Amino acid sequence: MEAAAVKPVLRVAAICGSLRKASFNRGLLRAAAEVCEDSVPGLRVDHLDISDLPIINTDLETDGGFPPAVEAFRAKVSQADCFLFGAPEYNYSIATPLKNALDWASRGKNCWADKPAAIVSAGGGFGGGRSQYHLRQVGVFLDLHFINKPELFVQAFQQPPKFDSDGNLIDDQIRERLKQVLLSLQAFTLRLQKD
Amino acid sequence: MEAAAVKPVLRVAAICGSLRKASFNRGLLRAAAEVCEDSVPGLRVDHLDISDLPIINTDLETDGGFPPAVEAFRAKVSQADCFLFGAPEYNYSIATPLKNALDWASRGKNCWADKPAAIVSAGGGFGGGRSQYHLRQVGVFLDLHFINKPELFVQAFQQPPKFDSDGNLIDDQIRERLKQVLLSLQAFTLRLQKD
Amino acid sequence: MEAAAVKPVLRVAAICGSLRKASFNRGLLRAAAEVCEDSVPGLRVDHLDISDLPIINTDLETDGGFPPAVEAFRAKVSQADCFLFGAPEYNYSIATPLKNALDWASRGKNCWADKPAAIVSAGGGFGGGRSQYHLRQVGVFLDLHFINKPELFVQAFQQPPKFDSDGNLIDDQIRERLKQVLLSLQAFTLRLQKD
Amino acid sequence: MEAAAVKPVLRVAAICGSLRKASFNRGLLRAAAEVCEDSVPGLRVDHLDISDLPIINTDLETDGGFPPAVEAFRAKVSQADCFLFGAPEYNYSIATPLKNALDWASRGKNCWADKPAAIVSAGGGFGGGRSQYHLRQVGVFLDLHFINKPELFVQAFQQPPKFDSDGNLIDDQIRERLKQVLLSLQAFTLRLQKD
Repeated sequence: MEAAAVKPVLRVAAICGSLRKASFNRGLLRAAAEVCEDSVPGLRVDHLDISDLPIINTDLETDGGFPPAVEAFRAKVSQADCFLFGAPEYNYSIATPLKNALDWASRGKNCWADKPAAIVSAGGGFGGGRSQYHLRQVGVFLDLHFINKPELFVQAFQQPPKFDSDGNLIDDQIRERLKQVLLSLQAFTLRLQKD
Repeated sequence: MEAAAVKPVLRVAAICGSLRKASFNRGLLRAAAEVCEDSVPGLRVDHLDISDLPIINTDLETDGGFPPAVEAFRAKVSQADCFLFGAPEYNYSIATPLKNALDWASRGKNCWADKPAAIVSAGGGFGGGRSQYHLRQVGVFLDLHFINKPELFVQAFQQPPKFDSDGNLIDDQIRERLKQVLLSLQAFTLRLQKD
Repeated sequence: MEAAAVKPVLRVAAICGSLRKASFNRGLLRAAAEVCEDSVPGLRVDHLDISDLPIINTDLETDGGFPPAVEAFRAKVSQADCFLFGAPEYNYSIATPLKNALDWASRGKNCWADKPAAIVSAGGGFGGGRSQYHLRQVGVFLDLHFINKPELFVQAFQQPPKFDSDGNLIDDQIRERLKQVLLSLQAFTLRLQKD
Repeated sequence: MEAAAVKPVLRVAAICGSLRKASFNRGLLRAAAEVCEDSVPGLRVDHLDISDLPIINTDLETDGGFPPAVEAFRAKVSQADCFLFGAPEYNYSIATPLKNALDWASRGKNCWADKPAAIVSAGGGFGGGRSQYHLRQVGVFLDLHFINKPELFVQAFQQPPKFDSDGNLIDDQIRERLKQVLLSLQAFTLRLQKD
């Protein structure tokens, strides 16, 4: 009698594009980790810190080697099964710290290649929407496979409040929509993984 | 007898999006400064260094104040009449160091507001093209008025060589096209300046 | 004694991207015409019909000549001082009928060249936002000078109702924001016109 | 003894964005059909004609029904396993006839949903590049899964000639790169098909 196949746990590397402590986008990623632990079996969210990456300058590379903080970040990117980006919009495009992280892990051997990803964002206006489409274009070169649906744009300043002053998500409808994003990412990751 | 009107010298702040010493885009901006000095009366190019800006984190702001390097950069942006961006393409979008500079000078009182700008870029593929269109979208929020034509995309790896190993522009045709960009920027700046 | 200078009336050509009779975007343009007549001296909105343009096929051109409906449309574009686009979003980009009109008047002698323009849009989601940024990229090639601010995105399905069933704008706040767009377009047009 | 599994033939619906008879993009699609027949077992290219689609106007829809040419086109889109777009760039964005076809088959039940796709293009400048990124954004809403690599941009006016005067591809290097696009589309389609 064969043992039942055990579905492996997929590791989602969650990356927040803002360095601000009380960032709403960081709050979305914390909520995503909770949602997975509570109600998405088979999916685990690990937060990847990007706050100690130097601003990208390829003169800092030596013989294909990278500064230590970059090496450590690249290793974690390489180990992930898929990605969840918390992607604030800065001036109608990608937040600089997120772009910095994307750039560093693309150098030499591209650590993002051929992996699925999803984007969530919070902010004013379109709730981060313009950032998401620029990020998707970056993904073409990085060879990321983004889920198409559902998209999640949190209009952070509309009533009722969506986040508390520490950036914690306090809106149950958005929490449920976040869960749908995670389920879609999980399904797309399993679908793309070769047998 | 009245004195002839003296056309004021317009100050172009040139900002290179790459921190790399031998950057081709920095080479384009050096060439732009030479071209103005040699053959564009009324236009002066000043290079704005962005290498000492910390990566953007609004937690670094205090009571509307900015870190010293940011304050200094913002002051120079505010004094410029118009801008020339040397905008390399990193992963199909804006180079991180350039986005960082754009973000810092947009905080609080937006220092870019209502000024004309032009973009030049060098690189593989489309010669930086994808970066330019993302930068133009950023400019909508920053309230920059980009010239439409001519556009300059330098395909840096096509023969004959366009740059030497220090990143100096060595191609006369591109130097002439760069001059046309500068003349267009000058004309658009004068046209937009109120009497 | 000199006569006081009479400010000329600027002609805004208004083009609706949708062919649907009850189009919200057409309703925005009708409201813009009313707003100008009521409270923006010096600005007149003329609606340009695009419903009889054939779908673009350059095989229809003969010796630099165009089909009659195209010729008539091109003549009207050429006579305008500036443009107001009512730009719905179809599938995250520019509505096809609007793109068709833009394409036809760009052939041969580009009829849009060097003229100011503004965009307004209404729809679900971002209220047409994605369409506006694609349209701005088209404007780089067409050599349109878009105003940067204010932008107007009408989220047509939010309460309270913004339009009646015939597509007439019934929201006074949006009417006021529309007026601000028109004033900005007027000011930018005057600023760009050479003396 | 079980019979060896027979790999099913995947049907690629090829759609040319230009209506021009001698279109280079149409030539690329003809070449794609030949390449598949000659050297890509398991992949068959069928050309979908879009020249008789009316320009989109949802007032033409009746009770969920579409004009006959639209119904016929939608049926063919629904039957395809994946898509190959020949996507010329018109004024820095998607060619109008292609956008028209995309729009019609998205109405009501979205016929594009959850299917893989690839883009090839030919033209001046970036060889159609700007059109491809706008089309990818449209694909997010249509729920198309585009291959990331390889991308194919044919700079149609560079020497040596790439096409003859009828728009037939006459360059073997590009033909080989086209084959790589098709192989990538085939592999991605098989990977995404559920068992």
